[in-house]
Amino acid sequence: MTSLAALKSVAAAVAERDMANAIRALAMDSVQKANSGHPGMPMGMADVATVLFGRFMNIDPTAPNWLDRDRFVLSAGHGSMLQYALHYLLGYEDMPIEELQRFRQLGSRTAGHPEHGHALGIETTTGPLGQGISTAVGMALAERMLAARHGADLVDHYTYVIAGDGCLQEGISHEAIDLAGHLKLSRLIVLWDDNAISIDGPTSLSTSMDQPTRFKAAGWHVQSVDGHDMEAVAAAIEAARRSDRPSLIACRTVIGKGAPNLGGSEKMHGAPLGDAEIAATRENIGWAHAPFEVPDDILSAWHEVAARGQAARRAWERRLAAAPRREDFERALSGKLPDAVFEALDAFRKEHVEKATKVATRKASEMALAAINGATELTVGGSADLTHSNLTITKGMDRIAPDDYAGRYIHYGIREHGMAAAMNGIALHGGFVPYGGTFLCFADYARGAMRLSALMNQRVVYVMTHDSIGLGEDGPTHQPVEHLAMLRATPNLNVFRPADIIETAECWELALRSEARPSVLVLSRQNLPMLRQAHGHENQTGQGAYVLREPSTHRAVTLIATGSEVEIAVAAAERLEAEHGVAAAVVSMPCWELFEEQDADYRKSVLGSAPRVAVEAAARLGWDRWIGETGAFVGMTGFGASAPAPDLYKHFDITPEAVAAAALKLIF
Amino acid sequence: MTSLAALKSVAAAVAERDMANAIRALAMDSVQKANSGHPGMPMGMADVATVLFGRFMNIDPTAPNWLDRDRFVLSAGHGSMLQYALHYLLGYEDMPIEELQRFRQLGSRTAGHPEHGHALGIETTTGPLGQGISTAVGMALAERMLAARHGADLVDHYTYVIAGDGCLQEGISHEAIDLAGHLKLSRLIVLWDDNAISIDGPTSLSTSMDQPTRFKAAGWHVQSVDGHDMEAVAAAIEAARRSDRPSLIACRTVIGKGAPNLGGSEKMHGAPLGDAEIAATRENIGWAHAPFEVPDDILSAWHEVAARGQAARRAWERRLAAAPRREDFERALSGKLPDAVFEALDAFRKEHVEKATKVATRKASEMALAAINGATELTVGGSADLTHSNLTITKGMDRIAPDDYAGRYIHYGIREHGMAAAMNGIALHGGFVPYGGTFLCFADYARGAMRLSALMNQRVVYVMTHDSIGLGEDGPTHQPVEHLAMLRATPNLNVFRPADIIETAECWELALRSEARPSVLVLSRQNLPMLRQAHGHENQTGQGAYVLREPSTHRAVTLIATGSEVEIAVAAAERLEAEHGVAAAVVSMPCWELFEEQDADYRKSVLGSAPRVAVEAAARLGWDRWIGETGAFVGMTGFGASAPAPDLYKHFDITPEAVAAAALKLIF
Repeated sequence: MTSLAALKSVAAAVAERDMANAIRALAMDSVQKANSGHPGMPMGMADVATVLFGRFMNIDPTAPNWLDRDRFVLSAGHGSMLQYALHYLLGYEDMPIEELQRFRQLGSRTAGHPEHGHALGIETTTGPLGQGISTAVGMALAERMLAARHGADLVDHYTYVIAGDGCLQEGISHEAIDLAGHLKLSRLIVLWDDNAISIDGPTSLSTSMDQPTRFKAAGWHVQSVDGHDMEAVAAAIEAARRSDRPSLIACRTVIGKGAPNLGGSEKMHGAPLGDAEIAATRENIGWAHAPFEVPDDILSAWHEVAARGQAARRAWERRLAAAPRREDFERALSGKLPDAVFEALDAFRKEHVEKATKVATRKASEMALAAINGATELTVGGSADLTHSNLTITKGMDRIAPDDYAGRYIHYGIREHGMAAAMNGIALHGGFVPYGGTFLCFADYARGAMRLSALMNQRVVYVMTHDSIGLGEDGPTHQPVEHLAMLRATPNLNVFRPADIIETAECWELALRSEARPSVLVLSRQNLPMLRQAHGHENQTGQGAYVLREPSTHRAVTLIATGSEVEIAVAAAERLEAEHGVAAAVVSMPCWELFEEQDADYRKSVLGSAPRVAVEAAARLGWDRWIGETGAFVGMTGFGASAPAPDLYKHFDITPEAVAAAALKLIF
Repeated sequence: MTSLAALKSVAAAVAERDMANAIRALAMDSVQKANSGHPGMPMGMADVATVLFGRFMNIDPTAPNWLDRDRFVLSAGHGSMLQYALHYLLGYEDMPIEELQRFRQLGSRTAGHPEHGHALGIETTTGPLGQGISTAVGMALAERMLAARHGADLVDHYTYVIAGDGCLQEGISHEAIDLAGHLKLSRLIVLWDDNAISIDGPTSLSTSMDQPTRFKAAGWHVQSVDGHDMEAVAAAIEAARRSDRPSLIACRTVIGKGAPNLGGSEKMHGAPLGDAEIAATRENIGWAHAPFEVPDDILSAWHEVAARGQAARRAWERRLAAAPRREDFERALSGKLPDAVFEALDAFRKEHVEKATKVATRKASEMALAAINGATELTVGGSADLTHSNLTITKGMDRIAPDDYAGRYIHYGIREHGMAAAMNGIALHGGFVPYGGTFLCFADYARGAMRLSALMNQRVVYVMTHDSIGLGEDGPTHQPVEHLAMLRATPNLNVFRPADIIETAECWELALRSEARPSVLVLSRQNLPMLRQAHGHENQTGQGAYVLREPSTHRAVTLIATGSEVEIAVAAAERLEAEHGVAAAVVSMPCWELFEEQDADYRKSVLGSAPRVAVEAAARLGWDRWIGETGAFVGMTGFGASAPAPDLYKHFDITPEAVAAAALKLIF
């Protein structure tokens, strides 16, 4: 069924303009009732949204997770009432009118900004500007990749984005549109709410950017239309769908369209209209209905739109039932990794315990990835232009290229933030498990999107190498100090810092098993010894921390470390015992978050009751939790420096000698 | 003296190509000796750099901080040997050949990436890609602003940038070039090392961006030249200097130009050439000299360039000596704020203690800023499109606009990262004290540049409002949780979270007095009561933490809080005393960093020996330092939610009742 045919049946029953006015009224009334929110965007974009959803969007509110639905991303997330109004009108069962009446209230589905998981059909969390459009790039890429594997019969949808001026000013948008244009993601269509207003006032206060030219420079198909001319908008979307490149449609709109006095002003952006202007708006747009009342004929017209999507979904299910590789497809969508992955990792650990393999943990990660990627095709790797430093590519991974989406490796370019957002989009889309690499220090650049991985419970794996002063000569701009604290403070994020090849494999296993939580693998540039003495099937990293070395006599001191500093702690313990007769235990603590989740008895058994010294080549912040008030910390107190790594460890006094001295000071 | 005239005298003595080959040889030999570094860029851009420095740059190595010098920013900081080679050739006294021989070694001035403060003439720290070009926007803006105040006789210089593909791929570059184009910063000239190679390989792996068109869309003057055709480069720079807009010169180069086998390959990017290729390169470019040897005639040619700058500087000093407002100008350059600022803040505190003013700390900040900005013209404010939320503008501050640089307020647009980098540039340039606002949560977006503020010891003041779940309805995407930990873990950064209007004024005073350290003011959206009981001239926030409320009898418990939660702690203390007869002290701890710097006795007197409860509407990470192993923490354990603020405090159990209950549990 074509969208135009659908339109005719709808248009016969009710004017499309009234369908749009229903959005306007619901938006202004909800914001007014909440006394909080952003009415200007939903009112300004109501016409565009009505055309997009009314004529084009292929979604089924009764099956909101249908794989081949079109994706809709409200990148200008402050206009959340646009989405909630649409969901109510389309008949999503979890979005009755009462939810609109509880806009922005505790426990409602209608949060201030669209929150993925809070209501059906919200494809991604938006609000931080620029994230939506950048996440959508990942969705559009995942669609092409899945289509390359399973064919257009099963995967053949569009990704639509409504973006505002803010989204296009944010730096991340540059990374996203460059990547999308390069990869020719032709099913990505961005509708830009070109209202020339931002919070401070007219956008001319701060920008003179010619956006259409900018997008053309990035290889996009670009059109400009009057966003209140529904036929023009429809024609533009039709043309965009036919294009072989991603599309920008600049929709010139009036912010708060319909409000006779405040429309067109920044005053409409983020505040309720007030009773008088709301009454004047009702008069102006010919909307005589009470707040939160939508006449039946208009609701019916919207429900017809939903029925169109339902029919499409049913047709797709018939195709799926007949698909020759249906099981493969459904397994990919489930996100379940085959047992072979975990068996391979178990064998990998056994092999390397026996070999006592001594490699950098970034190298260990590459070796573990070879095992993982050999056992599943669901993983999709990449790097922000540091492939051979992060060691994220393994044998047989073909690269994703323009018009060639069958590969498994993405050259994200020098775009850490865009990479993180795209990985969110890939994970949200379904069908793949994304991982991507950069230097740990450049977690700074990716922060905005990494936070959303955590907030949205997405399995995204960040491979962050060169994790301390141990990277050496590149110096303080590249040496993380505060980054572990930054990541550990982030809710719902597992931060892994393995000490050797065995822990690295264990961290990978845990990251892959964490289906509702992102992980960061924090890996060394420099070689590290094998510390684990024997192979067991149990994943010791799963407890977050464990006693790596228990002295033969009662502990006099416990040394706690992560990653590359565990080696230092072990050397310190040996020195303490040999030279001072001090019984020192060593605790390896690769994942604070998992250790925090263990029961108190286990935690106590690991930490012990003897004085504790922690050693980590990073900031102290957070370590007092584990060392207690009388403990000591050996680590960084400021920024790093440029020199060979061994010189830096000596210079900053992060050595077995220093750890032993700190321990002796505590004991005697 | 024109640059062309200077060239003639130089060209007479020695071929310009040999001056460039000196850079090539020094770069490849230093990288080889260090066995670490990036030779490709210095060798590829040696010709461009020779033209730029040889014919145009107005700098005086004997007076490297001369205000009106041209600024040079090596945005592609990994090519640091380009800059060190130039400094040696130009005769900077702190850059003898021995420093090049100690490239990337501990304690050398020749760090892996150029570090501001490590060697004379390094205008800004670069390495994290995109920072240099974005910082340069701030320098170019500061130049225009200072010229608008003091005239072209005293301020009339250019800001030159060498940027690589990475700089232009990073999102921050979008924010920077949009702002620069909008503000018509015509004295900003970017030389793009267009070598089409990045670390992973050809840039065509990840980008199809038409950079010249992109820059034109942003309002830039754009030229493309062969970067090895010195006359073409010179003509392009001449044209760029005449343009009324910022300029991009795309210099098509061969990475590692001169190396016969590796030139043009990504293998040249970040690794030594090896002895064989170095020998072949010597042969190829006709450089028969030993490593680190530069013939006298070539050195002399470079010294003539330096002499030209010295003459220009002396002429400028004569103009300065005769300038009617010389004292004003020199005061601005000194960065010393007048006593009137601090007197105004003292009077402000006195007034509001007496009035017991109850306002949000963001409002208190606006009021303090009115006092500050009324007493000095050195402060320059701005916001990333949240002016009336951050409350960063005060009466009489005119806005900076294209071709009108006399104002004091910058609409940075929706560009947090670009704003932070521009503020770094303004601070580095001299003449102004920049501050700028956004929501605390969007410190995420600005992280890369904020870290550099700290690393470079720059007085930049970040005004970060909406600092907790107290912002209410906007929900978890806008509610900081981990951000305080992230900032507190960052070295050399003061993080202030004031509890009332008096502490807010104290924080502003401390931020302005911190001439070698950036500050973050973390401010509430919601109203807070006046907690300080009496005025004293001492700045109590200066100690980081202090006892706000001491019970009349011996402390049974100490409650520690910051910002908006101090009110909750006070209410809890009152409840504990009234209902349970428990003597509770309240400690306000607006700045951890300053408290950490106090002596142990003071810290002990504040923290006390009674059990401690901390309360802060943020992540726990870091608090164990202050509460000890037996203490309790009342705060956030996950992300926030969307609801009115009072509902959220109840929902997350951050209330006087919860604090009192935690205290009672510790005591009994």
